Amino acid sequence: MYTAETLVRVRYAETDKMSVVYHGNFAQYFEVGRVEAMRALGYSYKEMEADGVIMPVVELNCKFLRPAVYDDLLTIKTLLKEMPTNYRITFHQEVYNELGKLLAAAQVTLYFMDAATMTKTTMPTRLANELKAFYND
Amino acid sequence: MYTAETLVRVRYAETDKMSVVYHGNFAQYFEVGRVEAMRALGYSYKEMEADGVIMPVVELNCKFLRPAVYDDLLTIKTLLKEMPTNYRITFHQEVYNELGKLLAAAQVTLYFMDAATMTKTTMPTRLANELKAFYND
Amino acid sequence: MYTAETLVRVRYAETDKMSVVYHGNFAQYFEVGRVEAMRALGYSYKEMEADGVIMPVVELNCKFLRPAVYDDLLTIKTLLKEMPTNYRITFHQEVYNELGKLLAAAQVTLYFMDAATMTKTTMPTRLANELKAFYND
Amino acid sequence: MYTAETLVRVRYAETDKMSVVYHGNFAQYFEVGRVEAMRALGYSYKEMEADGVIMPVVELNCKFLRPAVYDDLLTIKTLLKEMPTNYRITFHQEVYNELGKLLAAAQVTLYFMDAATMTKTTMPTRLANELKAFYND
Repeated sequence: MYTAETLVRVRYAETDKMSVVYHGNFAQYFEVGRVEAMRALGYSYKEMEADGVIMPVVELNCKFLRPAVYDDLLTIKTLLKEMPTNYRITFHQEVYNELGKLLAAAQVTLYFMDAATMTKTTMPTRLANELKAFYND
Repeated sequence: MYTAETLVRVRYAETDKMSVVYHGNFAQYFEVGRVEAMRALGYSYKEMEADGVIMPVVELNCKFLRPAVYDDLLTIKTLLKEMPTNYRITFHQEVYNELGKLLAAAQVTLYFMDAATMTKTTMPTRLANELKAFYND
Repeated sequence: MYTAETLVRVRYAETDKMSVVYHGNFAQYFEVGRVEAMRALGYSYKEMEADGVIMPVVELNCKFLRPAVYDDLLTIKTLLKEMPTNYRITFHQEVYNELGKLLAAAQVTLYFMDAATMTKTTMPTRLANELKAFYND
Repeated sequence: MYTAETLVRVRYAETDKMSVVYHGNFAQYFEVGRVEAMRALGYSYKEMEADGVIMPVVELNCKFLRPAVYDDLLTIKTLLKEMPTNYRITFHQEVYNELGKLLAAAQVTLYFMDAATMTKTTMPTRLANELKAFYND
């Protein structure tokens, strides 16, 4: 299974008047987690877009367990439990604070889309090749 | 069942480089939908906070079916399918564009919390009284 | 002089842990003000973009005088003090709360750009024709 | 003169349909620059708030010279040209892309405020002591 971790520092702008991170802003943290997970594999999301494939989010299921607060240095864990077999890819993602407490847990599903034709496609070979090593059994 | 509708105009700031609304921004549209649903009942969320009860979001499950685009005048439908019986409340929410197409559908669960003690509580009586009429059978 | 007013309701997402609107979010309120000022003239920004002209912001000067708070129904005033004579256009914009208090005052300068060539251009004739009536002397 | 630099990676969420960073989002980059400039001095903004002093932004003047694009690793330069002598502090801030091109330049003025009384105050002694070394002449 492929897993990656990245750090995100909570901005003042991301908090709300409850003095916690506005729940909707976790979507950005999950985005950063997925993007850095791809970069760590050697094929950035930006490169993939330049190669003509985009990945819109089609489903987000998220539980908010504990608040994230201003200036927290969050750890975003991104897990790809199984290799996609078609145009869908589902990430499991978790957000932890500096005390190691789990703040949020999400499943995020995206499609691989051909940007030129806006039709569904499959994972680019370059990305699949990088990922294969983590699922060989 | 209590239902409410409100309109939201898509801002330029809410779009991303895919030329559609960034998926994370739908959380704000759902927030506007719930807030206006409460205002329509005669007890605004702001008043409820002033009365000492806050409603953090604890779960968001959302499917993104079609893109929302810049300047769309979206209709946010907010449905409360059943009266809460404890500290949890779950809204069903949908976003439609001007053509009547369903763009996104979500279930959003929040807790009623006593802001002073930060403990779970139940729906304020004033809100419950307003809602009762929609569930009398 | 052409002036326009529009209303914006402060969202929870727009507040920060100081319990006021995060200063950076006023940029969105000013955007809404300009967009609705154009729509009121009969030529929406969206139509102008479809016609091939975009308007990036090149300068923003803003004073924040008083805080905007959650659920405030803000009035955004947008003034075009003089007709542009080249590729630059400067709006004067103000934000008032429900008590009529001035919360923020800004000058926002944008360029008219040809989206196809990404070169500076002048105000589209259709927009100029609508505006002329407000400056005939 | 005290100067500090920090890096910020552009998020997808921060771009708009012009395929560049929405101008309003630079306010967040400047915030990150100031916050990291304080952390580098050994007295974080979070600590200062815990000590009862907050710093609302009262003026933002910003020129946007070139676009920032998705996934750019931006350098935020924060300069404090002179020691504050009263409740006002003005930062000069610049954003550069990976090619060393200047994208935006701003002056941001904030007030030191006593959070308990919401009255203007002066820079906390602890912060002043850290900064003094950079202005001894």
